[in-house]
Amino acid sequence: MESFFKVKKPEEVLALLHHFGPCGEEELQLEQAFGRVLSRDIVSPEDLPGFCRSTMDGYAVRAKDTFGASEGLPALFEVVGEVKMGEDSPDSVRQGQAMRIPTGGMLPHGADGVVMMEYCHILDTQTIEVSRAISPLENVIQPGDDIKKGATVLRKGCWLRPQDIGVLAGLGLEEVEVFRKPRVAIISTGDEIVPVGDDPADGQVRDINRYTLEAFCSANGAIPEFLGICPDNFERLKGLVENGLESADAVWLSGGSSVGTRDLTLAVFETFKNFELLVHGISISPGKPTIIARSGEKPLVGLPGHVSSALIVAEVFMAPLLARLSGLREGGKPRKGRVSVRLSRNIESKSGREDYIRVRLRKEGEEWMADPVFGKSGLISPLVEGHGLVKVDVNTEGLYKGDLVEVLLFNGGAV
Amino acid sequence: MESFFKVKKPEEVLALLHHFGPCGEEELQLEQAFGRVLSRDIVSPEDLPGFCRSTMDGYAVRAKDTFGASEGLPALFEVVGEVKMGEDSPDSVRQGQAMRIPTGGMLPHGADGVVMMEYCHILDTQTIEVSRAISPLENVIQPGDDIKKGATVLRKGCWLRPQDIGVLAGLGLEEVEVFRKPRVAIISTGDEIVPVGDDPADGQVRDINRYTLEAFCSANGAIPEFLGICPDNFERLKGLVENGLESADAVWLSGGSSVGTRDLTLAVFETFKNFELLVHGISISPGKPTIIARSGEKPLVGLPGHVSSALIVAEVFMAPLLARLSGLREGGKPRKGRVSVRLSRNIESKSGREDYIRVRLRKEGEEWMADPVFGKSGLISPLVEGHGLVKVDVNTEGLYKGDLVEVLLFNGGAV
Repeated sequence: MESFFKVKKPEEVLALLHHFGPCGEEELQLEQAFGRVLSRDIVSPEDLPGFCRSTMDGYAVRAKDTFGASEGLPALFEVVGEVKMGEDSPDSVRQGQAMRIPTGGMLPHGADGVVMMEYCHILDTQTIEVSRAISPLENVIQPGDDIKKGATVLRKGCWLRPQDIGVLAGLGLEEVEVFRKPRVAIISTGDEIVPVGDDPADGQVRDINRYTLEAFCSANGAIPEFLGICPDNFERLKGLVENGLESADAVWLSGGSSVGTRDLTLAVFETFKNFELLVHGISISPGKPTIIARSGEKPLVGLPGHVSSALIVAEVFMAPLLARLSGLREGGKPRKGRVSVRLSRNIESKSGREDYIRVRLRKEGEEWMADPVFGKSGLISPLVEGHGLVKVDVNTEGLYKGDLVEVLLFNGGAV
Repeated sequence: MESFFKVKKPEEVLALLHHFGPCGEEELQLEQAFGRVLSRDIVSPEDLPGFCRSTMDGYAVRAKDTFGASEGLPALFEVVGEVKMGEDSPDSVRQGQAMRIPTGGMLPHGADGVVMMEYCHILDTQTIEVSRAISPLENVIQPGDDIKKGATVLRKGCWLRPQDIGVLAGLGLEEVEVFRKPRVAIISTGDEIVPVGDDPADGQVRDINRYTLEAFCSANGAIPEFLGICPDNFERLKGLVENGLESADAVWLSGGSSVGTRDLTLAVFETFKNFELLVHGISISPGKPTIIARSGEKPLVGLPGHVSSALIVAEVFMAPLLARLSGLREGGKPRKGRVSVRLSRNIESKSGREDYIRVRLRKEGEEWMADPVFGKSGLISPLVEGHGLVKVDVNTEGLYKGDLVEVLLFNGGAV
């Protein structure tokens, strides 16, 4: 059976995904941009902050007037006013003078530092004693201390986190250019598949893959578009894939765990223009019978029919594919959570393929342990029980109890 | 200044958040339920799968007819038909007979196992040789092998991942009861704050916090609702908080880094019915001037004005608060990613408070290192440069270069 496949190694498959790139740009209001991917570098149009600000509640003074001040020998200052938040003070601070200033207030002219309130002793409404010397610019941030005009603040291809959105707001950007979310057309194939609302007859099963893959797309920044359930019929499948190529940026089929239906998938894919078969089988378990091809710039993917295999292939290969289509640059994407934990028992594995073992995390004293969740192939419950995946490398024959292993956490994370 | 605060330890603050609970339930179509929190236990109404299925392409037989079969002495079988996907076969398999079956096909009556295709040699259209014995139920999954009728499949309070959605589909559930997403009313306070679209005059700054906190809410499964920028004015602030308590499940103010504006926030909160002050100051840095109170069941929160302090308080305390309001049970939530890495330099810290240090992750050879990102207080750029936070425990005076530290990754994850 091996010979029917052009079986590729996982790293070869990941390299081939570089065929694909971002789907286009759109402009969004800043409040819509969380979790989106920047499509252009952001260069700061101005200094942030734009003026000298106090970082403390206290008194603005000329630093040199505090030189030598101490608890034993405090320096006296004349209080000449108070800085109001959001306003430039009309008055200046001269030698021996101080002006009350709140945190975030604009430093008045003449002053070059702020004495914290706790080192100021109020004698009367017009006089304070300062019991500590400050250096110039102490408790003050200057224009550009945070971000300098002309600096590249955020780079094309980065995923926007709350603080990134914040910095765009700080620079006065109400709109931002991001890459379009990729649209993924999803088709469930197989004569045995019925909609979730139907009561399956003997031999029929409900369409689990549709919902699992839709959610997987949402979790990875894509927009799923379900096209329907398709029986194992060449013309009907061809019609649906055609619809998918028209309306979406990628087409994912799932189904066809038997050799016959896999052949059907490939035969349908081959009819599309600018077709190239990239991957026909991957040396991983589960998930070997995976097809990755392209029609022009759009990926055509045939995922395994078993939902557990389909989801593991999705976690390992479709997440990187969606990252490519989303325009994420290497390192610009918040990587999914990984935790290092100890394995609670031995895992055997055939060498010559990468094995992905579902594990459940459990705390034992202070340490996290990973319990392998076993089960016959084709079951979904081990994925539901599990928190993530442990990879058994292609060249090893297994992992041992007590080994420190890295767990790739399922979407959304861990326990 | 210390005496103005009822300063609480971080663990006391986290314990006080248990005052708050979920905001209500709603019913969703399954395709809308990804990332939502189940509000009821899911008990399986049926066995999954509902019938005996083959997990391989091959021939369905009676296992005992293969006993003793080997390459040297294959067993002969009469082929009596082929199982069609999605159909119950009208024919039975009797002694010495075999029926071709695809992966996922329903086992025909009489058969109790499947011989994989690779151990079958086709002699003619009606005869095969089997070169390997199978045990009963080999390559077959039985009704309930995946999920048994009456089993609790998913528990109230769990966050729905793609595979969880998949299992609900498998059980025929088109709708699912989930907790409502909490609505958070956000108010930016301060005389110095102007909308992002405005050109700030001297002393004014743009409203960074609004956007940062909106995105933070979205990242944590809540719906942000921005109520506006409010100057430091008792009546106007009171009016906005009142609006927030009417329309939302929680009210978050941010601003007021100076003592005066913090007092204003508290004075406004105190006017609401069933008011209780829970926290007035937390022994962490940054983020000490934080107020957490409640009006009945709804939290009223005063966050620091500096965006970096506000976001760190949000990561450490508001994420758990939103988890409570979302109905997430302990362990039901995909925990945010944490990675263990080595510190690249010493970090000093005052004992008596928890310090949160922003760090940037960097790969050095095979190992990940955390570089502290320093900066004066009140800057946003260290948060943008950073990948996450390292906590310096309250009882330590710092951390040393080479220490293995745990990094709480910012929303969305790591590098």
